[in-house]
Amino acid sequence: MAVYTEVSDEDLRGFLDMYDLGEVLSFKGIAEGVENSNYFLQTARDRFILTLYEKRVREADLPFFLGLMEHLAERGLECPLPVRNRTGQALGRLAGRPAVIVTFLEGLAVKRPGAGHCRAVGAELARLHEAGRDFPGRRPNALSLGSWAGLFASADGQADRVAPGLAARTQAELDELAAIWPRGLPEGVIHADLFTDNVFFIGDRLSGVIDFYFACTDALAYDLAICLNAWCFEPDGSFNATKGRAMIAGYQSVRPLEPEEVAALPTLARGAALRFMLTRLVDWLNVPPGALVRPKDPLEYDRKLGFHRKVAGATEYGWEPVRETATSTASA
Amino acid sequence: MAVYTEVSDEDLRGFLDMYDLGEVLSFKGIAEGVENSNYFLQTARDRFILTLYEKRVREADLPFFLGLMEHLAERGLECPLPVRNRTGQALGRLAGRPAVIVTFLEGLAVKRPGAGHCRAVGAELARLHEAGRDFPGRRPNALSLGSWAGLFASADGQADRVAPGLAARTQAELDELAAIWPRGLPEGVIHADLFTDNVFFIGDRLSGVIDFYFACTDALAYDLAICLNAWCFEPDGSFNATKGRAMIAGYQSVRPLEPEEVAALPTLARGAALRFMLTRLVDWLNVPPGALVRPKDPLEYDRKLGFHRKVAGATEYGWEPVRETATSTASA
Repeated sequence: MAVYTEVSDEDLRGFLDMYDLGEVLSFKGIAEGVENSNYFLQTARDRFILTLYEKRVREADLPFFLGLMEHLAERGLECPLPVRNRTGQALGRLAGRPAVIVTFLEGLAVKRPGAGHCRAVGAELARLHEAGRDFPGRRPNALSLGSWAGLFASADGQADRVAPGLAARTQAELDELAAIWPRGLPEGVIHADLFTDNVFFIGDRLSGVIDFYFACTDALAYDLAICLNAWCFEPDGSFNATKGRAMIAGYQSVRPLEPEEVAALPTLARGAALRFMLTRLVDWLNVPPGALVRPKDPLEYDRKLGFHRKVAGATEYGWEPVRETATSTASA
Repeated sequence: MAVYTEVSDEDLRGFLDMYDLGEVLSFKGIAEGVENSNYFLQTARDRFILTLYEKRVREADLPFFLGLMEHLAERGLECPLPVRNRTGQALGRLAGRPAVIVTFLEGLAVKRPGAGHCRAVGAELARLHEAGRDFPGRRPNALSLGSWAGLFASADGQADRVAPGLAARTQAELDELAAIWPRGLPEGVIHADLFTDNVFFIGDRLSGVIDFYFACTDALAYDLAICLNAWCFEPDGSFNATKGRAMIAGYQSVRPLEPEEVAALPTLARGAALRFMLTRLVDWLNVPPGALVRPKDPLEYDRKLGFHRKVAGATEYGWEPVRETATSTASA
């Protein structure tokens, strides 16, 4: 739930005067997203989303994110396209914040995805990776292995307040992942936060991907590992291998995984679970009094991590070798 | 900021299956309104607002509110029109709550209204009163004089926690208003909550009125007194007589006030200020820990009440007699 920043009538008018969007017909705060303030903006010309970037997004990273969306949209990926103002700028300032207008994407986020959704997300993720191949921007993943010890340290020894034993378990995981973290996997632009709220569907058709504000350069298979964590577990904590199989098959229908990516998948899935456990843990321990946002439960990802630790190989996530004849059969 | 109730994919699908609105293209929680959960709903046919009624709205009152909106919309007032489902029902259930789909109104709420906005609101309020004349429903005002002592009692002697002296000042006001509250004024349907967030404008044109969930049967001039409180004070607490004059003139351009309404205006304005001070006070003292909504400041209305107590007559709000020639001059 968002909208942290209130926009005054004058500020809005002044900002929109720099654009060529026609008369404003509607402007409503959207109760979604936890990083930024988002407004639904209807003008005589079209529907848009106006985003104010709150302090969690580094302003220096915005050109990377906006350039990436433009790049991906040009290559046919359904994602928000930043709208340039009369002077050709996509990035402006509103109410003291960096601000951007992007095109509106139709579709609904599914809260309880089925295997069909997982297959579609897998395929879209691979398309995103392919479309990002020739994107010239680079942005190191600020929330990968190198940052996790620091994140854990900023929890300041209070992890056991959340669950007894969490501190020791997390320290052991950090040590082990530092030793076995895979290197040299195929890299490129990854979304890095492709949770269910960031993918829209109309009926069963995937209609768009949003929220590129964690996008970075990292191992492509790590992005798939994040999606397995985000989409393929049931509310009771169990991994749904049917959904995993659908997601990986969807991914491989566009971009088959390399053998070293398949081998690394269990480790990458542990890392992804640890990354979300740690950021949630820090948020959980740092809720300001009177906060308008409820933090997400870090233990959900601690439990997922427990599952990944017992996984022996990618087949347990539903991975199967790409059948050589699959493409010709499908198109027959 | 609202959206208290999350709607599951299955519940939404099941609910919308009862309507004939075409494929769902968008469904987003709106971060506005503090009483109910509101969603922006775009379908292949049109745009709508889906509202889930939270516990503060009495379910037994909903037929009055929905019938009133239908009545006013039929008479040309720009307000949300409840959409009936395939069985002819406007009121349904979703996620365990009473739920309604209404038509979407374009326009923006102004945060800092000018005199022009105030004039338009005054005229629209009078149009609402005229359009409501033949509405057969009746609903006593649950937040008028008879309820104030009870509201104050539920603050449980804690008013001085909010501001020293507030308790004694409020008790004196309650006693005095009980003695002088005007009776026998022209009555009808009033909106009773026409604050700036409930009126939309496109450019300078008033495009719609929303949120009829305090509407009731009461003195028409009391509704104008509420609007004077809500629209004509400046952020520094001073009353802006230019705005008051514009609002009253706007009202009288549609429905001239009776002499007894003019005489009662200062008392009605005190009552309106007291009503909002009291409900805000109770909310302020009853914020649950971890609440997602910040309560509004009761002292804003305590200060307005202080202004009204010193007002000697309606001219201080900007009231002027309707000039007999005004209509013919305007239409010349």
